[in-house]
Amino acid sequence: MARLASDYRAVRSVTRSLAAALSPEDQMVQSCPEASPVKWHQAHTTWFFETFLLRPFLVNYKPFHEEFRRLFNSYYNSLGVQISGKPLRACLSRPRLDEILAYRAHVDEAMETLLSARIGDEAARLLLLGLHHEQQHQELLLTDIKHAFFQSPLHPAYELAPLAAQTSVPVSDLAWHKFNGGLVEIGLTPSARNALEFCFDNETPRHRVYLEPFLLANRAVTCREYLDFLADDAYSRPEFWLSEGWDAVNTQGWEAPLYWERDTTDETGWRVFTLRGWHSLGGLLDTPVCHVSHFEADAFARWRGCRLPTEAEWEFAAYGRTVHGNLLDSGRLHPAKPHGRGLEQLFGDCWEWTSSAYCAYPGFQPLPGPLGEYNGKFMSGQMVLRGGSCATPASHVRAAYRNFFHPATRWQFSGLRLASSVSSSNQPWLPPCRP
Amino acid sequence: MARLASDYRAVRSVTRSLAAALSPEDQMVQSCPEASPVKWHQAHTTWFFETFLLRPFLVNYKPFHEEFRRLFNSYYNSLGVQISGKPLRACLSRPRLDEILAYRAHVDEAMETLLSARIGDEAARLLLLGLHHEQQHQELLLTDIKHAFFQSPLHPAYELAPLAAQTSVPVSDLAWHKFNGGLVEIGLTPSARNALEFCFDNETPRHRVYLEPFLLANRAVTCREYLDFLADDAYSRPEFWLSEGWDAVNTQGWEAPLYWERDTTDETGWRVFTLRGWHSLGGLLDTPVCHVSHFEADAFARWRGCRLPTEAEWEFAAYGRTVHGNLLDSGRLHPAKPHGRGLEQLFGDCWEWTSSAYCAYPGFQPLPGPLGEYNGKFMSGQMVLRGGSCATPASHVRAAYRNFFHPATRWQFSGLRLASSVSSSNQPWLPPCRP
Amino acid sequence: MARLASDYRAVRSVTRSLAAALSPEDQMVQSCPEASPVKWHQAHTTWFFETFLLRPFLVNYKPFHEEFRRLFNSYYNSLGVQISGKPLRACLSRPRLDEILAYRAHVDEAMETLLSARIGDEAARLLLLGLHHEQQHQELLLTDIKHAFFQSPLHPAYELAPLAAQTSVPVSDLAWHKFNGGLVEIGLTPSARNALEFCFDNETPRHRVYLEPFLLANRAVTCREYLDFLADDAYSRPEFWLSEGWDAVNTQGWEAPLYWERDTTDETGWRVFTLRGWHSLGGLLDTPVCHVSHFEADAFARWRGCRLPTEAEWEFAAYGRTVHGNLLDSGRLHPAKPHGRGLEQLFGDCWEWTSSAYCAYPGFQPLPGPLGEYNGKFMSGQMVLRGGSCATPASHVRAAYRNFFHPATRWQFSGLRLASSVSSSNQPWLPPCRP
Amino acid sequence: MARLASDYRAVRSVTRSLAAALSPEDQMVQSCPEASPVKWHQAHTTWFFETFLLRPFLVNYKPFHEEFRRLFNSYYNSLGVQISGKPLRACLSRPRLDEILAYRAHVDEAMETLLSARIGDEAARLLLLGLHHEQQHQELLLTDIKHAFFQSPLHPAYELAPLAAQTSVPVSDLAWHKFNGGLVEIGLTPSARNALEFCFDNETPRHRVYLEPFLLANRAVTCREYLDFLADDAYSRPEFWLSEGWDAVNTQGWEAPLYWERDTTDETGWRVFTLRGWHSLGGLLDTPVCHVSHFEADAFARWRGCRLPTEAEWEFAAYGRTVHGNLLDSGRLHPAKPHGRGLEQLFGDCWEWTSSAYCAYPGFQPLPGPLGEYNGKFMSGQMVLRGGSCATPASHVRAAYRNFFHPATRWQFSGLRLASSVSSSNQPWLPPCRP
Repeated sequence: MARLASDYRAVRSVTRSLAAALSPEDQMVQSCPEASPVKWHQAHTTWFFETFLLRPFLVNYKPFHEEFRRLFNSYYNSLGVQISGKPLRACLSRPRLDEILAYRAHVDEAMETLLSARIGDEAARLLLLGLHHEQQHQELLLTDIKHAFFQSPLHPAYELAPLAAQTSVPVSDLAWHKFNGGLVEIGLTPSARNALEFCFDNETPRHRVYLEPFLLANRAVTCREYLDFLADDAYSRPEFWLSEGWDAVNTQGWEAPLYWERDTTDETGWRVFTLRGWHSLGGLLDTPVCHVSHFEADAFARWRGCRLPTEAEWEFAAYGRTVHGNLLDSGRLHPAKPHGRGLEQLFGDCWEWTSSAYCAYPGFQPLPGPLGEYNGKFMSGQMVLRGGSCATPASHVRAAYRNFFHPATRWQFSGLRLASSVSSSNQPWLPPCRP
Repeated sequence: MARLASDYRAVRSVTRSLAAALSPEDQMVQSCPEASPVKWHQAHTTWFFETFLLRPFLVNYKPFHEEFRRLFNSYYNSLGVQISGKPLRACLSRPRLDEILAYRAHVDEAMETLLSARIGDEAARLLLLGLHHEQQHQELLLTDIKHAFFQSPLHPAYELAPLAAQTSVPVSDLAWHKFNGGLVEIGLTPSARNALEFCFDNETPRHRVYLEPFLLANRAVTCREYLDFLADDAYSRPEFWLSEGWDAVNTQGWEAPLYWERDTTDETGWRVFTLRGWHSLGGLLDTPVCHVSHFEADAFARWRGCRLPTEAEWEFAAYGRTVHGNLLDSGRLHPAKPHGRGLEQLFGDCWEWTSSAYCAYPGFQPLPGPLGEYNGKFMSGQMVLRGGSCATPASHVRAAYRNFFHPATRWQFSGLRLASSVSSSNQPWLPPCRP
Repeated sequence: MARLASDYRAVRSVTRSLAAALSPEDQMVQSCPEASPVKWHQAHTTWFFETFLLRPFLVNYKPFHEEFRRLFNSYYNSLGVQISGKPLRACLSRPRLDEILAYRAHVDEAMETLLSARIGDEAARLLLLGLHHEQQHQELLLTDIKHAFFQSPLHPAYELAPLAAQTSVPVSDLAWHKFNGGLVEIGLTPSARNALEFCFDNETPRHRVYLEPFLLANRAVTCREYLDFLADDAYSRPEFWLSEGWDAVNTQGWEAPLYWERDTTDETGWRVFTLRGWHSLGGLLDTPVCHVSHFEADAFARWRGCRLPTEAEWEFAAYGRTVHGNLLDSGRLHPAKPHGRGLEQLFGDCWEWTSSAYCAYPGFQPLPGPLGEYNGKFMSGQMVLRGGSCATPASHVRAAYRNFFHPATRWQFSGLRLASSVSSSNQPWLPPCRP
Repeated sequence: MARLASDYRAVRSVTRSLAAALSPEDQMVQSCPEASPVKWHQAHTTWFFETFLLRPFLVNYKPFHEEFRRLFNSYYNSLGVQISGKPLRACLSRPRLDEILAYRAHVDEAMETLLSARIGDEAARLLLLGLHHEQQHQELLLTDIKHAFFQSPLHPAYELAPLAAQTSVPVSDLAWHKFNGGLVEIGLTPSARNALEFCFDNETPRHRVYLEPFLLANRAVTCREYLDFLADDAYSRPEFWLSEGWDAVNTQGWEAPLYWERDTTDETGWRVFTLRGWHSLGGLLDTPVCHVSHFEADAFARWRGCRLPTEAEWEFAAYGRTVHGNLLDSGRLHPAKPHGRGLEQLFGDCWEWTSSAYCAYPGFQPLPGPLGEYNGKFMSGQMVLRGGSCATPASHVRAAYRNFFHPATRWQFSGLRLASSVSSSNQPWLPPCRP
């Protein structure tokens, strides 16, 4: 229990510090339908603890404000009609930020009371879920404010200190790691005895899948490689694109990743908006490309004669490895150069799009009650991403972790890693210019 | 010049006090495409003086921030591409409210310098235009924040003090004032000698129009009369509606004026959202109905066997009368009961929709340069309203004043006054139940 | 009555012959929401006579098909819910064209019976309305099939014979006709005694208006003049455009009139789609420009330092003149060169956009019953056009005739004639190159 | 080769006879964006043979019309810009139906020439693909005209003869077939030697998958069972629905399968539109429910405590069974009652939605060239259906056949079969009232 209490304090304080530099006004902005205001993230994560922990488990708990029950519900239909559809979130000037912060303090205090006594397994599981839920919103808080600041005509930086310089040693060529596959297991079946081992319901149960032999690239695709894709006129050539991807290119007017903007003063012709403001693309060429949609990731892989990995391949390759990399905890807030040793960048830097649609594992059972709406009801139309990004808390992610977004989504730190089937007659093809 | 300086201070201070009670967060909200954040109103009105007065006329004027020139341009195409399309205004967390206030102070100080010397006629005319421009935004500031607070799930009140009670003496029946018409003049031709007489270019020139004899109601249509319209199932009967109005009823799901919400606890079945929060409709029955579209006003008039007045009829009836009524200066912020004496409520309470489309007067010449975009380019698809509302500064409106909005617009304080042709065989018909 | 019967036969036979060359398939096409299939025009005009003449006035009339009552109602809400919203009209493969033709024959036969006896004034008025209604649909039939054939990838010609060549004598320079104006009368008050004098309710009553002195161009604006407008980059310069017009230019991607298509083989760089197929623009330079929206007409006039006439100015200038010109009866089906004598092209060639919004005349009373929906309910958001086009039957139009469309409409034969105020200090300005 | 020629003749004649009863007008209708006019189906299937067989393989082949190459291309980007986007297909009054039929005859004649000689393996494979392509369009022709006739206000029947009556013996209760699963194979690897064995590229290659033990229902879900779902208010209860499904229910206003219409005269309260016109739902209660979306199928299964099968489970269960059932060849054109013996209705009656997103099989390689666009580029956002319907030619479908549509699609004959995991603690649950 002591660990639960300290974990609670730690996670909550991360949210607090991520939002600390943002004014009440900054925390109001909602710049696209997928995003939410930072203030709302702060309130909604608090609502989770109040709704699922304090109301059911803390005797005599006095809610901070009765209206907040509806106000900060995100999408749990079984908890009643939501008062705040996403487009309304930008109208929430009231409650004010200071009231939201008081709400956080009120709930934190009550949680301390709850956690000072022994809590049962069910409450412990809900608490863990609440912490992981808040960590998800920490990542969203960063990606949402990045989008908001990009829309803002003054283009403010979230973090004023510039990106730390990295070694100028060029990144080594892409190398392939071979996996034999076979009948393997993926997913997790939570231990019945240890309530403190956490995974989301969509990662369960552990189950067998058969994998053909496959190759996986040693690192993520870099901006330099992606520039080659642009230089080959790929955004104008339908042969590389899924049909809906080609539609997206044309209706959205895509011609590069999100946050790339033409800049004739840069050697590459582009500059990139980061959480630390504008940055020359020339200085980021060896870092993983990010903020690409699944459609772009898939088209890049096809152009390169490769493919995206399935989520099972990815998880099998990552299984057993320490979660280590350029995650939120590094404080960099942007993808970094690979080190050039072994199979790297699996965790952190950028989420990696897979070729797998987000579906139920065999034997999947959603959580009972409203929390069953957490993951299961989104199992249509979305694609799985793996591995976390530079905005993901290190304690949040693991090899089995399934993130999911619609294939046209670009505002997350989403990139890709190449894969290839071994059995196919054609070995992975690398364009002659970049052997 | 002394009067100009004191007018400048007076108008600017009204904006300041209207926004004073609103937090930085409240001033960020943009709840519909027609509205703008309060903070933006504060900045844009300031931009006007900086752009049209200080930059051209004040030697050595140092702009507050170069970027603001594009940032707070609303729609003057001739001043360059606007950086902040309306949908982006809600993303303007930066500049912060305190920076906007500093911008206001900076410009006010420079304006004092400018006004401390003698300024020429052209500058004087621009200054007057800037003051009237700012007064227009004062009204918008109020209607925009009303809309924002209505969207907010907590429905905060802009003004905490409740509406002042009014006498319970019932309002007298509607009476008709007859006008013989003939060849009359409307519009204004500004005096060449007196730069301090102000009117907008769209009110010019004074010109002749021929009016047939007509009747004008002594007061605006009340909520009680509008309830009869509802009770007669008017929102379900196409015969009363213009074709595009009937479409709007069905696609927008209108069933009452904007800000009316069903309330079974009220005798009337409705409550009304005001700038002072929710109010029983039962307590407002004798006040003018407002927040109706042109389509609703027109349908009400047709249902009643009458019609809306033309703008020429309205102006002819109002010409020469003192601007007096329930305007912004009364501080009520909501329409009030008529007194029952004479032709009243012409000024204040609510704007009155006319049957006139907003077009150029014969001989109309827009202002030269970018200010020619102020009025003239909107002369398509909009309808004229007359008389000002409870949110209009008294010094802003006059008999010749032409306001204009699209016929489906409802977020302004817009109501109606009945008119009728005398020459028609059928005298204005009043439903038997309400003679 | 004999005249009524012969008029009936004449009008009905025009529809028949206009549709004769079109296959059942051609008569099915609906290529834009404003248009209707030719087959539907044939049925709906017949429905009018069945609904308003045969059912009420012909004893023992047996309707052709009960379902047709709903099926071919266009927009008369008072006659019940319409079964065929405009987007559904292209689904009407049944009834087949041969059934529609049988319907026409059935109604024509019953009408002969009705007309063989003496009919009363009410029936006579309805019959006249039905004939004018059918003439309106004759024009729509042509403009709709022109649009359909333009959308068709094979671009078939409606009429195979090419446009008759015209004299190569260049058209004379634009000249101005001056009118003194004053208190004049426009509109019509139908004679109570003569049921055979026809006008639409929206033309009534005859009433006084005051006109300032004005100038009217002797002819319509030509394609050559419009090319100058294009050459001056007018579609990229916001200063010439109404605000909603500028939006239309940008969202619709307009860069020339509808039916102009770039053609590098033509000296002018353009070719034009006509009812007789593609035509070199070079061969049409002296003919009136047509298929321009109100926004384009208004922008052209402003670019030229002039303005559009009001509908009262136009009618006053045209009053008393014989309806004579390049109308449907000429069989040309496209605007023609002016002759260069006097005030010409008032009737025919192309409808002329005015600066007047389509509103009720003072004292206007819509027809009683469902026919009151004919004109009155469209009095919002539309602009008046005058004079008829090369697709208008000569017996259909007159000086008082008010046509009306939304200002963005382009699929009609709509062009413009310049006007100017005399009183304004600046005389109408003509660009130096074309004095 | 003789078999190829006779297959060619057989397939082509089916298209001809399916369209034979439809007038040129019927063949023009396009009633929703997913559908195409029948005439277009006839031309596009012919275009396939001209483009991929005659142009490359028949010496001196003279194309019927050069423009048709672009005109009847559906979505092959690599063959150039398509002239006829789907929304334009309803504008294709030209070429006329008789010209399309002449085009078919022209191509058929040339194909006879080609097939009279020996053709190579590549041409044979393309021919087979062309035949299967045409069979797909035969099914679409039927589902598209069904939709068109449903939109038509006269609701014509495609086939005038009423549905054949079926035995009134009630259908037996649902029974479960158990499969042990394990490491199994699905998909097909085409024999290199036999060009006449056909499958689509998306069915390849044959590969291993691991299946947990599962139960599969003996038959499709019936209308009677679906009525229970409605009676339980399922369309108003979000807990059964995927998030995007719940959105679809609300935005589309779904309250029953497509083609069900309320009918107070029927005991069930509903009637159903079929290719043979309206039919009492009461007379179809024991037939499979069809025209439901994936969202409805998935919600029904969840409501029933079950789930949809994966495509691997379905294929494994169907593998090795004879393709036999109520397919197009039965001529019924509507699902039929099950016989009550064994695992039935796998083939025919209605396509069965699976829980599998449409993705690439491991090792999948699209066909080279433009035909690689046939299947692969649609591998996003769609769900797999299996088994064929009453509109699928029997020679077209097989156990490995993968059909795919967006999950909101309803205009196909799409229904469902229940499945359940065995390993889960809860056995498939059947509501008490229907054990």
